[in-house]
Amino acid sequence: MSEGQIGDSQMKLRGRIDPNEPRYVRVHPNDNVAIIVNAGGLVAGTRFSSGLVLTDDVPEAHKVALSAIDEGSPIVRYGVVIGHAARAIHEGDWVMEDDLVAPPAPDLDSVPLATQTPASLPPLEGYTFQGYRNADGTVGTRNILGISTTVQCVAATVGYAVRRIKAELLPRYPNVDDVIAITHNYGCGVAMNAPGAEIPVRTLRNLSLNPNLGGAPMVASLGCEKLQPAQMLPASLLPILQENPYVVRLQDEQHMGFEDMVAALMELAERRLIALNDRRRVTCSASGLVVGMQCGGSDAFSGVTANPAVGFASDLLVRAGATVLFSEVTEVRDAVHLLTARAADHDVALRLVQEMRWYDEYLSRGSADRSANPSPGNKKGGLANIVEKAMGSVAKAGVSPLTAVSGPGERVTTKGLVFAATPASDFICGTLQLAAGMNMHVFTTGRGTPYGLAMVPVIKVATRTSLAERWHDLIDVDAGRIATGDATIEEIGWEIFHMILRSASGEHETWAEHWGLHNEYALFNPGPVT
Amino acid sequence: MSEGQIGDSQMKLRGRIDPNEPRYVRVHPNDNVAIIVNAGGLVAGTRFSSGLVLTDDVPEAHKVALSAIDEGSPIVRYGVVIGHAARAIHEGDWVMEDDLVAPPAPDLDSVPLATQTPASLPPLEGYTFQGYRNADGTVGTRNILGISTTVQCVAATVGYAVRRIKAELLPRYPNVDDVIAITHNYGCGVAMNAPGAEIPVRTLRNLSLNPNLGGAPMVASLGCEKLQPAQMLPASLLPILQENPYVVRLQDEQHMGFEDMVAALMELAERRLIALNDRRRVTCSASGLVVGMQCGGSDAFSGVTANPAVGFASDLLVRAGATVLFSEVTEVRDAVHLLTARAADHDVALRLVQEMRWYDEYLSRGSADRSANPSPGNKKGGLANIVEKAMGSVAKAGVSPLTAVSGPGERVTTKGLVFAATPASDFICGTLQLAAGMNMHVFTTGRGTPYGLAMVPVIKVATRTSLAERWHDLIDVDAGRIATGDATIEEIGWEIFHMILRSASGEHETWAEHWGLHNEYALFNPGPVT
Ligand SMILES: [Ca+2]
Ligand SMILES: [Ca+2]
Ligand SMILES: [Ca+2]
Ligand SMILES: [Ca+2]
Ligand SMILES: [Ca+2]
Repeated sequence: MSEGQIGDSQMKLRGRIDPNEPRYVRVHPNDNVAIIVNAGGLVAGTRFSSGLVLTDDVPEAHKVALSAIDEGSPIVRYGVVIGHAARAIHEGDWVMEDDLVAPPAPDLDSVPLATQTPASLPPLEGYTFQGYRNADGTVGTRNILGISTTVQCVAATVGYAVRRIKAELLPRYPNVDDVIAITHNYGCGVAMNAPGAEIPVRTLRNLSLNPNLGGAPMVASLGCEKLQPAQMLPASLLPILQENPYVVRLQDEQHMGFEDMVAALMELAERRLIALNDRRRVTCSASGLVVGMQCGGSDAFSGVTANPAVGFASDLLVRAGATVLFSEVTEVRDAVHLLTARAADHDVALRLVQEMRWYDEYLSRGSADRSANPSPGNKKGGLANIVEKAMGSVAKAGVSPLTAVSGPGERVTTKGLVFAATPASDFICGTLQLAAGMNMHVFTTGRGTPYGLAMVPVIKVATRTSLAERWHDLIDVDAGRIATGDATIEEIGWEIFHMILRSASGEHETWAEHWGLHNEYALFNPGPVT
Repeated sequence: MSEGQIGDSQMKLRGRIDPNEPRYVRVHPNDNVAIIVNAGGLVAGTRFSSGLVLTDDVPEAHKVALSAIDEGSPIVRYGVVIGHAARAIHEGDWVMEDDLVAPPAPDLDSVPLATQTPASLPPLEGYTFQGYRNADGTVGTRNILGISTTVQCVAATVGYAVRRIKAELLPRYPNVDDVIAITHNYGCGVAMNAPGAEIPVRTLRNLSLNPNLGGAPMVASLGCEKLQPAQMLPASLLPILQENPYVVRLQDEQHMGFEDMVAALMELAERRLIALNDRRRVTCSASGLVVGMQCGGSDAFSGVTANPAVGFASDLLVRAGATVLFSEVTEVRDAVHLLTARAADHDVALRLVQEMRWYDEYLSRGSADRSANPSPGNKKGGLANIVEKAMGSVAKAGVSPLTAVSGPGERVTTKGLVFAATPASDFICGTLQLAAGMNMHVFTTGRGTPYGLAMVPVIKVATRTSLAERWHDLIDVDAGRIATGDATIEEIGWEIFHMILRSASGEHETWAEHWGLHNEYALFNPGPVT
């Protein structure tokens, strides 16, 4: 595989373009395919200003061959080989999924380790937001009471209590933004000694410690479950957990029935609400931000518009001293050689290799492989295979050095660009990024998905203007303007950066917040259920 | 391992007992351990009417040695060896978890196949309930609009729409009991070609076909997900699915934003509500019942009180022509030789062996084994190991012949006693039993769990009077009266049977219904996430 550089310089378009003019985007000068930009696609016979003539109807966001490609020859996009031609391809042909034979994933034993560590970009001084300072040094962007649960058995009861807390108590504590139950499908009926069981347990622990919960979690437990409160959230972690009791155990003998359990939950919740209500936003350095980057429902524009713009914003955040999390193991696996080369040092590169290897083995135990990733929608959106998807996905990581790698559900305390290993599945990735300490989330989408989380604001960035216009009340940023020439990657990157600061400060309401779109937490449990 | 018989004759106590008299329950004449019945346990030195004297303080529901047991000798309960003594045990000793070395699980290659098929019990004629007849021959016990979802991405949007449907539309359709969203963590970000992926897919399909949804499901889809509506719920399955469109696809181009998506969901929902509202309950034979039996939060009383009473009710249901589902592979694994012997024929026995073998391999792939099952609460409740738990668990299956075996998530159409293979995890088991076609659920608990499902009424049966009294507004039936001598297994069995008929008819509200305790669906996905 040839080593490609994804710099924003290759991605900039040459200026404003007539919307009726047929056009394509070639990402890298070495590419022998490009993607069609025009909404609705283009018909066979269309002639471009370059002289290229389409031999097929090609849908929007799909690939056209810029030159003839012999059977077996490399198909190049982003300057890297995304596959070899399964047939003789003519100039102007639609290059479809079945026309590519994907190369094997990079061999983890021979990837370059910190061989091309980039120089750090110049610091960005003076950017701040209004946040809630926590005793542990983290900063909240919202002020939320989180009720953690050890086991799924208590979920319905806690849900009932939360409805009453929101109706009867929360209105009296106006500085508290929300009350949320962290419910899940774990805690019992699982093999807690199986390899990997530490992942869901630490995820639940670290979700409780998310900066937006202000160091004031409370715990609802059943009593007889396998995952006991002291294992999930040891009292030594936070001063507030040393209060006795910080746990409501439904099976405790003093509860004479359901109404007593609900009353106990409401009483402990009110003690927490009183403390949270006294908190005020203060001016905090942008370095207090922990921004999780994710994509979902990707298309071929993802790697051209939204993800490079998010990558530019990532670099701005890193320059401002913040933490940027990027994730989605199965989507970066095929670009891992680019990332290991960019690692800050040898150890960081090896940690990345280790996470990739663990996931390879996890998939192989389940008789699956990385080809399971692209969805029918990805393919309809023009992404032929996981290599092409990966090249687009890593664009979210900008060009900063990779400073740290964390395992699924681990808390991240490093500043700079961090690979927080997660599956690509949107809700599992989001849940694990919350556990890592995320206090702002940026989500790019090409096909469109009405994603939202209860614990942090989610800024949704569309890869295409047609989606941004249609989903006017769900999409926060239109990165499709990059493909139409109405904006540059840098401009959209700055727009995202400023929206992060305003949203983190509570001065901007994202569409997911407006509608209260709160997807459930989804744990990553590699072990069996019993 | 000696072959034990669990008949109710050995379980009957000798009549009403003075609550202050020290007492224990020996289940089978060959047992050399018994369990302490007195609330709060008994102290060392306590003398029973049998002459036995306790050498240790023994908690309620824990085991006492009825005679000396040499190190390495069998410890027998339910007439079967639940372990071998890890030390020399004296008469009157508390026999604790660590005092038993569990025997290996029965070898699946040498279990008896239909060698002791019991005679069918005499039919019970004339029992009926008021139900909703469906076109496919099934009968609903409730009249619910179910909104199926193909993928987790739509869950928050569907949740928003359901809140509005319940507030704005449902009050105009008073014959419809509820509107529920069947949300889950599946549909994308999963390896759909991995072995086992057919399980969550058919589970979602068959959940949509549950009798309580009246053959009127609708589907919410995103558009780009891996699990497409036509795979989840083919239009050929039900006449109503041939209506065009029966699916709301959020990504469809005619939706100009979130409010349009919600409007489309509400419009299709209203069409379904109109049809459901015209339905009326009619008198149906008890043979239309499909009753799922489950236990959760078990203790040592489970196998003495609640489960045998449920087993008696199971036999009544089978005699009345109904379907009884029992489940929980990891809890019957150690009693499988008793069940294969009871199978109606050789093929049914082999199907049971096949499901057990599949699960052994599934656990082994994840480096877990059956010892992962008992929870700390089970152990605190007196259950030493999975063998003892299994013997108590299979008591739910009564003494009828085993007429069929189904795989996880498969629809069951056989009458009689059916083993519907599921994990023991309460919510996964409940979800899979709903997919099997369950229209009534009976749940036994010793430690106590506030369990409930949205799709069917759940009757909760306590193993101990102390739990039933404390959880007066959660427990529907107190089977602890069997241990105190205030009722017989037969009496509680009939009480459960009659409560099933009244609850199925909508004439009795279970406590879970009263509080609206609706635990989330939990799919069984043996494959990896991506
Ligand atoms: Ca608010
Ligand atoms: Ca993605
Ligand atoms: Ca994703
Ligand atoms: Ca159980
Ligand atoms: Ca169970």
